Amino acid sequence: MKEHYQKLVEQQSRLNRLNHLKEIAFWDQATHMSEKGIKSRADAVAELSQIIYEIECNENIKIDLKKAQKEHLSDIEQANIQEIERKFKKKSFIPKDLIKKKQVATSICEHEWRKQKPSNDWKGFLSNFKEVVHISRVKADILSQKLGISPYEALMDDYEPNLKEDTVNRCFEDIKKWLPTLLNDVMKKQKTITGLVELTGPFESSAQKNLNLEIMDLLGFDFQAGRLDESAHPFCGGNPQDVRITTRFNQKEFLSSLMGTIHETGHARYEQNLPYNLLEQPVGQARSMSIHESQSLFFEKHIGCSAQFIKRIYPLIKKHLGSSPSLALNNLQNLNLRVKPSFIRVDADEITYPAHIIIRYEIEKELINTKLEISELPELWNTKMDNILGISPKDDFKNGILQDVHWPEGLFGYFPCYTLGALYAAQWAAMIKQTVRDYDEVIEHGDLTKIFNWLDINIWKKASILQTDALTKSACKGESLNPKYFKNYLEQKFLN
Amino acid sequence: MKEHYQKLVEQQSRLNRLNHLKEIAFWDQATHMSEKGIKSRADAVAELSQIIYEIECNENIKIDLKKAQKEHLSDIEQANIQEIERKFKKKSFIPKDLIKKKQVATSICEHEWRKQKPSNDWKGFLSNFKEVVHISRVKADILSQKLGISPYEALMDDYEPNLKEDTVNRCFEDIKKWLPTLLNDVMKKQKTITGLVELTGPFESSAQKNLNLEIMDLLGFDFQAGRLDESAHPFCGGNPQDVRITTRFNQKEFLSSLMGTIHETGHARYEQNLPYNLLEQPVGQARSMSIHESQSLFFEKHIGCSAQFIKRIYPLIKKHLGSSPSLALNNLQNLNLRVKPSFIRVDADEITYPAHIIIRYEIEKELINTKLEISELPELWNTKMDNILGISPKDDFKNGILQDVHWPEGLFGYFPCYTLGALYAAQWAAMIKQTVRDYDEVIEHGDLTKIFNWLDINIWKKASILQTDALTKSACKGESLNPKYFKNYLEQKFLN
Repeated sequence: MKEHYQKLVEQQSRLNRLNHLKEIAFWDQATHMSEKGIKSRADAVAELSQIIYEIECNENIKIDLKKAQKEHLSDIEQANIQEIERKFKKKSFIPKDLIKKKQVATSICEHEWRKQKPSNDWKGFLSNFKEVVHISRVKADILSQKLGISPYEALMDDYEPNLKEDTVNRCFEDIKKWLPTLLNDVMKKQKTITGLVELTGPFESSAQKNLNLEIMDLLGFDFQAGRLDESAHPFCGGNPQDVRITTRFNQKEFLSSLMGTIHETGHARYEQNLPYNLLEQPVGQARSMSIHESQSLFFEKHIGCSAQFIKRIYPLIKKHLGSSPSLALNNLQNLNLRVKPSFIRVDADEITYPAHIIIRYEIEKELINTKLEISELPELWNTKMDNILGISPKDDFKNGILQDVHWPEGLFGYFPCYTLGALYAAQWAAMIKQTVRDYDEVIEHGDLTKIFNWLDINIWKKASILQTDALTKSACKGESLNPKYFKNYLEQKFLN
Repeated sequence: MKEHYQKLVEQQSRLNRLNHLKEIAFWDQATHMSEKGIKSRADAVAELSQIIYEIECNENIKIDLKKAQKEHLSDIEQANIQEIERKFKKKSFIPKDLIKKKQVATSICEHEWRKQKPSNDWKGFLSNFKEVVHISRVKADILSQKLGISPYEALMDDYEPNLKEDTVNRCFEDIKKWLPTLLNDVMKKQKTITGLVELTGPFESSAQKNLNLEIMDLLGFDFQAGRLDESAHPFCGGNPQDVRITTRFNQKEFLSSLMGTIHETGHARYEQNLPYNLLEQPVGQARSMSIHESQSLFFEKHIGCSAQFIKRIYPLIKKHLGSSPSLALNNLQNLNLRVKPSFIRVDADEITYPAHIIIRYEIEKELINTKLEISELPELWNTKMDNILGISPKDDFKNGILQDVHWPEGLFGYFPCYTLGALYAAQWAAMIKQTVRDYDEVIEHGDLTKIFNWLDINIWKKASILQTDALTKSACKGESLNPKYFKNYLEQKFLN
């Protein structure tokens, strides 16, 4: 008899079902919803969120958790209990009114930011942002005390459970050591490549979409369990049996939509291949944001952007987009390898991207842990940009501290996952190459399932059965996360 | 102080918000959902339905209703209370296990019917259908006792509140008197029209869609508060500020998609123009299925199919679909007026359609009220078809008693609304012509808002403030529903 465990399972299934509807409402809002539908949609989702919150914080869970731990549970069931407990604790430690306050503060701050960013209004932004920071600090401090971790770790935990600052520091300090030199070397090498032709288009959206759909198919996306649509900001949503990925089209060039679609396809394949029998339970869900990002980045950077893959899909590119000098194979391969320091994170290349993340990590860590004055942020931003990338936006806040949606939305602790994801992706790639010896040939014209099988066995089917470090060790012959793989990969890709 | 009324209002708003999500999930399922998503979607919707049911049946409502009736309420608030009470009573009278039983029985019956219909398997269908009928009878008998109305009236009440058999009998007996003669006369007249050219196409879906969108625009559909998509069975869903209508495309002819879209646009305009400040309350919702159908049929039959409107939109038809003998204006006008008795309700013309409804009404009324043996249904069906339309499907059940989804789904009491809607539409048209004296010219090239304004004031903005009969009298200078308008309209349209 596992009476109490079963009660928890049923409660998690309920949450999963209600979250399914929230996911669809979110997808619909981003892709199809009518302008005038915004108010009633917001009200509807808030109503459902309230119901979800009440189920999540039901005091009976505490009792069932306690009693379930004495029941005879399998390893997977125990892992499930661990996930349920982790989530329940964090939910129940936070006072209800703080959650509401945070919703209000971030909603105002984000809404105003949409206007303040284009008008470069840092002062205006500050007036709302200070409340967002204050509430985030209160939340972080409460969880820090209760969980015995640093305040910033308490926030990172929402996206990457159990992630320690030490781990991030170790990786990011390592990167900081070699990144400027590598960047310099790559930029020097680039100067030797001449005759690059910019893409100009026009590339019809429908042609780009058809190309993307064929590439998704090639990459194993299951169209019986998902679809591709358009939205202003690309995302992967829905649920594992019906994954909704989106892209956007730029008539002038097709690579950002194509590579973006490949990125989301990585997220999608993870979701579509989670263990079927555990889908409604926390243990059956994706491990973390870093691991999720490692899948999308593996697909985008290690498959999609590679010279071999571009060669492979070149006939499809010609079929859908025709021919022109800018569409020459060699030109496309080189366009994908361009590197240059710039102000905007989302436009950054693979080498400078970690620099953007490290800056944000260092700043938000201080903001939460040592209560850094928020008025000091722009100066800190400029100094750090200058130190690591050699450029600084100065008072051009919209190209500096005001560029990302994360801070107005109070998403502190999220940023590190992007670069941890890149590190993991490189580490998986190194492991895969030990199994799939003819890796480059496989990418160019072989059976890609050889590569996907490794991911399926080592990542996808593991879901949340193991904690992130245990998952890494199990996939990497006992080795934890190691940034050397990322360095080796970049050198190989950009300096060879 | 209206403490108890306010509590009821808040509870109704909650229901409205949760139903919003159910509507979007339904729309998504019909238009975009992936095949493999069906199981998790069904689970998610069932979970939400359970929550909705619990709110609807909460015993506190009873208390609040009682106390609210002693509070000082406006007319609209009183009408709202009346709606809330009506719905609450019906929900709370039905035992919870009966609802579950009905869900299971209808789900099985409908699922099997999808295979039994094409294979003409009446016997197989009977084996599931008897349970659906049994449960519907139990429900009808409970409500009949509690509400002091006939069992069949208790079922009709779900779609048309307070509708009495006497009203339906009066209208349908009237129709039965003149329909066979009218049909005969029209068919005689038709023989004089020669040279009709069938549409053959191919008409591209995208061209048809663009044509439909322009016509929706012409008919005042608000694209900031709704959209058009494709689905296997056309419907109007979503919510008033974001109305989702659908259509389907047949490459061989475009009229069914166009007229179907105009039909759904009628439903949509009703929804889009309900009183904004009452949207979350029962009093602010569409009056009933008959009144809803009167809007869609008014748009489709009284505007869309008219010779004047086809003339008006003829340039758009040519623009999107090109020219050919079958696309000659006169040919299109005549194609829309063809009348011929046939077996299938959904393919029926405007004159024979009521015959299909009357047959179903008479049969299901007996089935529920006098417990007619279900084994006798096919014979009854054939006799009635023969009596009123002069044709009978005999043992071809798929073209007879097995054709509609309503009975497998246990939707007894719904059918009359279709023809009542047609009667109301004709009555509204007669009233509008008294106000808009140049009606035909307005349809052909005038300002259609003159017509829509009448609907807006007399139907749309009235929502559920008045009961159906009071609404009719208020719109028609004191006159209740009168089938003579429908007869006059048909004679005018088909014999002139």
